[in-house]
Amino acid sequence: MDFRIESDSIGIKKIPKNAYYGVQSLRGANNFKITGSKMHREFVKSLIQVKKAAAITNYEIGMLDGHMAPAIMMCCDEIINGGFQNEFIIDPIQGGAGTSMNMNANEVIANRAIEILGGEKGDYSIVNPNDHVNMGQSTNDVIPTSGKITTIKLVSNAINKLTELVKALDEKSKKFKNVIKMGRTQLQDAVPITLGQEFEAYSSVIKRDIRRIRKAAEELKIVNMGGTAVGTGINADKEYISKIVYNISMVSGIDLKQSENLIDATQNLDGFSAISSAIKTCAVDLSKMANDLRLMSSGPRTGIGEINLPAKQNGSSIMPGKVNPVIPEVINQIAFNIIGNDVTITMAAEAGQLELNAFEPVIFYKLFESIETLANGVDTFIDNCIVGITANSKRCSELLNNSVGMITALTPYIGYKTSAKIAKEAINTGKSIKEIILEKNILRHDEYDDFINPSRMVKPEYIRKTVKCK
Amino acid sequence: MDFRIESDSIGIKKIPKNAYYGVQSLRGANNFKITGSKMHREFVKSLIQVKKAAAITNYEIGMLDGHMAPAIMMCCDEIINGGFQNEFIIDPIQGGAGTSMNMNANEVIANRAIEILGGEKGDYSIVNPNDHVNMGQSTNDVIPTSGKITTIKLVSNAINKLTELVKALDEKSKKFKNVIKMGRTQLQDAVPITLGQEFEAYSSVIKRDIRRIRKAAEELKIVNMGGTAVGTGINADKEYISKIVYNISMVSGIDLKQSENLIDATQNLDGFSAISSAIKTCAVDLSKMANDLRLMSSGPRTGIGEINLPAKQNGSSIMPGKVNPVIPEVINQIAFNIIGNDVTITMAAEAGQLELNAFEPVIFYKLFESIETLANGVDTFIDNCIVGITANSKRCSELLNNSVGMITALTPYIGYKTSAKIAKEAINTGKSIKEIILEKNILRHDEYDDFINPSRMVKPEYIRKTVKCK
Amino acid sequence: MDFRIESDSIGIKKIPKNAYYGVQSLRGANNFKITGSKMHREFVKSLIQVKKAAAITNYEIGMLDGHMAPAIMMCCDEIINGGFQNEFIIDPIQGGAGTSMNMNANEVIANRAIEILGGEKGDYSIVNPNDHVNMGQSTNDVIPTSGKITTIKLVSNAINKLTELVKALDEKSKKFKNVIKMGRTQLQDAVPITLGQEFEAYSSVIKRDIRRIRKAAEELKIVNMGGTAVGTGINADKEYISKIVYNISMVSGIDLKQSENLIDATQNLDGFSAISSAIKTCAVDLSKMANDLRLMSSGPRTGIGEINLPAKQNGSSIMPGKVNPVIPEVINQIAFNIIGNDVTITMAAEAGQLELNAFEPVIFYKLFESIETLANGVDTFIDNCIVGITANSKRCSELLNNSVGMITALTPYIGYKTSAKIAKEAINTGKSIKEIILEKNILRHDEYDDFINPSRMVKPEYIRKTVKCK
Amino acid sequence: MDFRIESDSIGIKKIPKNAYYGVQSLRGANNFKITGSKMHREFVKSLIQVKKAAAITNYEIGMLDGHMAPAIMMCCDEIINGGFQNEFIIDPIQGGAGTSMNMNANEVIANRAIEILGGEKGDYSIVNPNDHVNMGQSTNDVIPTSGKITTIKLVSNAINKLTELVKALDEKSKKFKNVIKMGRTQLQDAVPITLGQEFEAYSSVIKRDIRRIRKAAEELKIVNMGGTAVGTGINADKEYISKIVYNISMVSGIDLKQSENLIDATQNLDGFSAISSAIKTCAVDLSKMANDLRLMSSGPRTGIGEINLPAKQNGSSIMPGKVNPVIPEVINQIAFNIIGNDVTITMAAEAGQLELNAFEPVIFYKLFESIETLANGVDTFIDNCIVGITANSKRCSELLNNSVGMITALTPYIGYKTSAKIAKEAINTGKSIKEIILEKNILRHDEYDDFINPSRMVKPEYIRKTVKCK
Repeated sequence: MDFRIESDSIGIKKIPKNAYYGVQSLRGANNFKITGSKMHREFVKSLIQVKKAAAITNYEIGMLDGHMAPAIMMCCDEIINGGFQNEFIIDPIQGGAGTSMNMNANEVIANRAIEILGGEKGDYSIVNPNDHVNMGQSTNDVIPTSGKITTIKLVSNAINKLTELVKALDEKSKKFKNVIKMGRTQLQDAVPITLGQEFEAYSSVIKRDIRRIRKAAEELKIVNMGGTAVGTGINADKEYISKIVYNISMVSGIDLKQSENLIDATQNLDGFSAISSAIKTCAVDLSKMANDLRLMSSGPRTGIGEINLPAKQNGSSIMPGKVNPVIPEVINQIAFNIIGNDVTITMAAEAGQLELNAFEPVIFYKLFESIETLANGVDTFIDNCIVGITANSKRCSELLNNSVGMITALTPYIGYKTSAKIAKEAINTGKSIKEIILEKNILRHDEYDDFINPSRMVKPEYIRKTVKCK
Repeated sequence: MDFRIESDSIGIKKIPKNAYYGVQSLRGANNFKITGSKMHREFVKSLIQVKKAAAITNYEIGMLDGHMAPAIMMCCDEIINGGFQNEFIIDPIQGGAGTSMNMNANEVIANRAIEILGGEKGDYSIVNPNDHVNMGQSTNDVIPTSGKITTIKLVSNAINKLTELVKALDEKSKKFKNVIKMGRTQLQDAVPITLGQEFEAYSSVIKRDIRRIRKAAEELKIVNMGGTAVGTGINADKEYISKIVYNISMVSGIDLKQSENLIDATQNLDGFSAISSAIKTCAVDLSKMANDLRLMSSGPRTGIGEINLPAKQNGSSIMPGKVNPVIPEVINQIAFNIIGNDVTITMAAEAGQLELNAFEPVIFYKLFESIETLANGVDTFIDNCIVGITANSKRCSELLNNSVGMITALTPYIGYKTSAKIAKEAINTGKSIKEIILEKNILRHDEYDDFINPSRMVKPEYIRKTVKCK
Repeated sequence: MDFRIESDSIGIKKIPKNAYYGVQSLRGANNFKITGSKMHREFVKSLIQVKKAAAITNYEIGMLDGHMAPAIMMCCDEIINGGFQNEFIIDPIQGGAGTSMNMNANEVIANRAIEILGGEKGDYSIVNPNDHVNMGQSTNDVIPTSGKITTIKLVSNAINKLTELVKALDEKSKKFKNVIKMGRTQLQDAVPITLGQEFEAYSSVIKRDIRRIRKAAEELKIVNMGGTAVGTGINADKEYISKIVYNISMVSGIDLKQSENLIDATQNLDGFSAISSAIKTCAVDLSKMANDLRLMSSGPRTGIGEINLPAKQNGSSIMPGKVNPVIPEVINQIAFNIIGNDVTITMAAEAGQLELNAFEPVIFYKLFESIETLANGVDTFIDNCIVGITANSKRCSELLNNSVGMITALTPYIGYKTSAKIAKEAINTGKSIKEIILEKNILRHDEYDDFINPSRMVKPEYIRKTVKCK
Repeated sequence: MDFRIESDSIGIKKIPKNAYYGVQSLRGANNFKITGSKMHREFVKSLIQVKKAAAITNYEIGMLDGHMAPAIMMCCDEIINGGFQNEFIIDPIQGGAGTSMNMNANEVIANRAIEILGGEKGDYSIVNPNDHVNMGQSTNDVIPTSGKITTIKLVSNAINKLTELVKALDEKSKKFKNVIKMGRTQLQDAVPITLGQEFEAYSSVIKRDIRRIRKAAEELKIVNMGGTAVGTGINADKEYISKIVYNISMVSGIDLKQSENLIDATQNLDGFSAISSAIKTCAVDLSKMANDLRLMSSGPRTGIGEINLPAKQNGSSIMPGKVNPVIPEVINQIAFNIIGNDVTITMAAEAGQLELNAFEPVIFYKLFESIETLANGVDTFIDNCIVGITANSKRCSELLNNSVGMITALTPYIGYKTSAKIAKEAINTGKSIKEIILEKNILRHDEYDDFINPSRMVKPEYIRKTVKCK
């Protein structure tokens, strides 16, 4: 391979001649061989959008001239449109608060801009990564800002998926409106409910999650660009500071605001902890829903069997005919992962010191994973599970009619203690509560059918004060 | 001891004659000897407020008569005012979704009401714990609602403490306005900042935490009262359902709303996960602040020593004169505990099944601990630490002037690479950057003092485009 | 109240005249009003045992005279035997690495010894808390050592409980030896298993947990006594250092060893992280078992209903006759709490700095809670759940015979694909697999009964190579 | 693209003609688009080793003939040697307990064996993925066993790296043997220690971690092969069951043992929780060490500055000359990630139900990440940080001599209280303790130098009982 020589404060280093990245990127890549992955593509895009906006701003205030600025901007557009992806060589878990990521962007842009301007890669006298591309910026404002933009984009996709999930659940809710079944609390027979009501409840909680996630994402629109190294704005021109956030909003299409306290915004990562928490709570709710679906579809013969999940693949390498709830199971695992990631993000957020939290890289790595796996999981959850769920109405009704739980409807009339005795007798003898109630002349046949009417038990009713059971 | 005999579905049981609790409470107390603690007093109060409101509502709709309702309400007031605390005998970690806690309240109220009405404790024909005190209710709506009310009350206290902390930090910020010091990123010398700016940043992040906690608490005002067992409202009169939440608001003084989906509200505990997360994020920010204070006060001779924390106790049993940052250390520990509690709460929230999450007891136990220890921690943090902090201005200024970091201010003029060389030379030789800059004729003496002026480096400035360094 | 005046480096302070604690204890109590609890009684005992051993050692080497040493030892015995408990006034979550706890012990001992020697409390010229009671010691060796001793004692009790659980499970295993039932994987019907095998598996995993916990506790027997402030042994006499651990072993009855690297042993708390992890893994296994019991006992009519848990209390305030799995539910909650505590302990262990980890107090607080609630939970689990479990053999056998899963036994003979078709047909038509197999002449009636024999399917068999299905 | 048609219980599906994977793999790939990654290469290798051993065993007992067995074994060797990697197409986070991974292996082997035997891919009459490749096996024994083998391999590499770290730390310990410096507890000046002792302590704790990890890995050598679906060994020939584990040991080179309770070993994943915990505790210790290095190297001018970390890259995009502790920072982030992963693994281990834990995939995904990032992190930690650390002996000695902490050495002679007063005076006046002690005639000059001798304060000494200070 051919090489060029570059140098930095550490010394000189051979760089592959064709590489657009430079010495600082390569040192970062060598220092951090941790996960084997690379920076998230969406993060690279956000970072370059920030760089483009900085070039625009520096041009507007006269700090970058009419040659360099367009070259930088053009190069940024090339990357934003998907070019040069292999030039971004830094591991997502890296030390240095993201300086390597930032310098990787600065070097790629500089070298490509140099090329555009007719120079040789590595000739930083033409365009300098630090002095020109990074002008007015610091890793410490560029990286958190890029992280926030990326998060907002990924969250937006996740919210779309969750919104589709709400629709799919609502449709099922309508479809299962009349499927009356036994409700269960603590896995014990309780009182009737409809399968439609259960799906409506799932839809209802996800709507709340969407609101919560949206609110947390809204907070991330407040960025610390202009704060540079520690939030005091050192080395950024006052005019640049007042314009940069507007220009990033223009370039990224996301309506950002500059923090009123750039020092706070540089050192505290509470906003990432908050969005991770909102994602986590959503994952908790999805996991509970997945557990319910697995319970209700348990069987086919020796479980609850109230619903059927669509068969998406053979369930077993050894047991023929077995179909497993593989999609809900993947939702559970995504949830466990997100909950673990939240702990990682929390610890990293706690570990900030003085003017900076240097642990953004791991926060981004796990947060992006959380958001994307949530979105991907919801996607397969809708398509390969929810929309194909069918009800075993007959089974639901058999279980319900066989149950003891319906005695509850009688307690306002005959009291808890008498009801409890009937229930106990039913369980011990195997008789139905109807038999016992009729035997004991507590109700007449027609009265029984009137009082113990599952379809009236699934919604609020007036207690009939004038009627007294015997 | 004298006993009376009570019975339930399980069988008969001897109850201490003077006890206001009954057979179901005692079974709960015997089954759950886990932590050795009892239900939180504030939770008992909230639970009794719900009971009182239910009695009012049942009276209003004609379900409870003019003898029983006042007896129940009077008894509730006695407990709310602090009476009968020893009658609440259930461990905070308990199985059964809180049925034992609910029945404990029902039994204590029933027995006291029986007494008021002239009966003998245990004669539930006069007032029945299930049929009368629990009328229209279920553990499954009473317990989460009481938990939400309690959380709102405890959070309100925590917010007051955090608001006082903001004030204390703001005062320090003003006081330390002119203490210029070296800012540090990644524990390495960076660029100047004022101690006042640092405290302002602390205040700023706590303000954000307050907003976030308040928002999460707001969500908890939506309750599932009226839903009874599974959210369908079975056994609660339609009129009762429409009035109960208003009456609880009146009794508790907290403006609650009834959930639009009582089934969702009965089975999903995401609201508790959300408030725990908000508390957790605040704990993260406090812990970071505590870490900073410990760093800045490190020494007295071999550390950073920029600030002094007030000496609150001897620091060591063996090392005389040692004064340790004990208050920030307790903040750290509270934060670690809250972060762990959040994991517990998350797991419990995930473990709901079908129509109910039976794991509210542990959620409440840990959530109340999180909120209260946060409030208590902040209290001692303000009084025993923040208000007494003093600045070592001389030390700050010595460190700053001795530092290499100020070279940063020159990069817009002489470029990153040249600046880096000067910095390196300073570090290697021990010379000050001033010496080197003057030696190399990069700036004249007066220029140096003009450019490298810490007080101008702590806030945005215009880059002086016309001036070129040599 | 009457007061005496004491002073320390911070200044003078009024102490209740009758108090055995002194100025440093009171400052600690005032600084740390966090949880409202006090130091664990068992920890106080361990701490006093260390103090007694130190007095013995200092007497042996001639550092304490024949008046003071016996007075200190006598006083230690009084506390060890349960006296003076109210004199230990420090909150378990405290700053200062446990200095307040240590000084609380030093002061109580000193004042009681002064009293024994005929002096007035507070007259530290007679016995000095630092110079005499704390002689040769530092908080930094005394507190971790006491924490280890306490942990070992509590773990010993937990292991006893777990051992009883193993016995109870083994008995059930024998009792349920012949209850053949459908095994389930992923909640779907799989292949036959016996209920006895299931309980044997539960016993098997708990045995492994016991070994793991024991091993982790073994590690804690290596202590840093003699290391004093940072592990270098400063201010402890060389002879004292060589004798102290032996003497603590004698006093406490636990066979301790002195760490070969006292500096490591003073600053690293990995041993506590390891024991917490072992407890956590045990909690995971118990929680899984509790979940299984809840699943298998679900019903009584609309669930799986293979086993009955003993009814320990009314299940519901509203639903008569409902009996809930309250004991397994409490096990789940204990597990969630332990898992959260492990995160807290992990974070605290990570937060050590240089020569010390100052966050032992919160580690002890949560670790002791984890161990004790585990032991308490196992206790109620055995007595109130496991021993009373009964099998619904009839239900097990009905479900099994009705199931499709038994087709698996035929796959070695007719292949996976043909078997899968039969299974699918059975599920779709509702027919039994026996009907289909006989219809299709795959096996004769007697062959079917021979091949599809559940009692042969629950243990390894030779594949009958000579027999070919049609 | 050309396709072939395959079918399974779900229906028919087009498969790319050249693909070695089949219909079940493709369904799995389509159902689980979660992380975008693929199964870990080392896991694929372990899985194929198990498959090879199964073929050997089935051949030995006469179940596979002399044509099919060699074809399967040959194909396994090809994959083990790195072939066919792109044919493994399943996402590491997948539902179905790993059935998709298992079937992916079965299908690739079958198709390649078919090819070897002269058939067309997809013609499963020649070699059938379920009946032949998976003979005697189930996902439920194959997948956990492969996971254990993989873990053991990865752990072995991690232990090698940790062992190198111990060596590197030991070398530094020797090198820094005579660098006496101030020890710090709670970031406050304590008593002298040598830098060598500090590095020895680091080495000491890592040695303990190695032992702990090794022990946890040892447990994983007990596998459930032969248990098939639920641990009862259904469909595996009795002779196969007795030979399979030996054959896997032969093929993999790892000395495995068959569990004595295959049912337990199939449903409980405590072994993975235990190894994750051991890795986590090691991460905690590494993170503490990294924090210490960052603290001790803080500066260069305004921090502690006792050591220099090697400069591995420019520290800042804006601040010239800044060199950051990027390698320790990456260690911290790896630790945070591992701690979060442990929570994920814990939750997944807890979520097993009845005869199986279906959540192995996410456990493996995070566990492998934990182990590998630990090993990778330690690798860069050694090479790019530890070996290049140098001591600032002069700075250490200046700080030490300027310190107040050395007064501690005098307390055995003049008492805690008098010592505390001297310390306080020193701090308040800025005087050295030497000045004060001489001024007050507590010691003569020569006595001072004898008593307050740092090099005697870093190791145990005899208290000189005959000498009394004035």
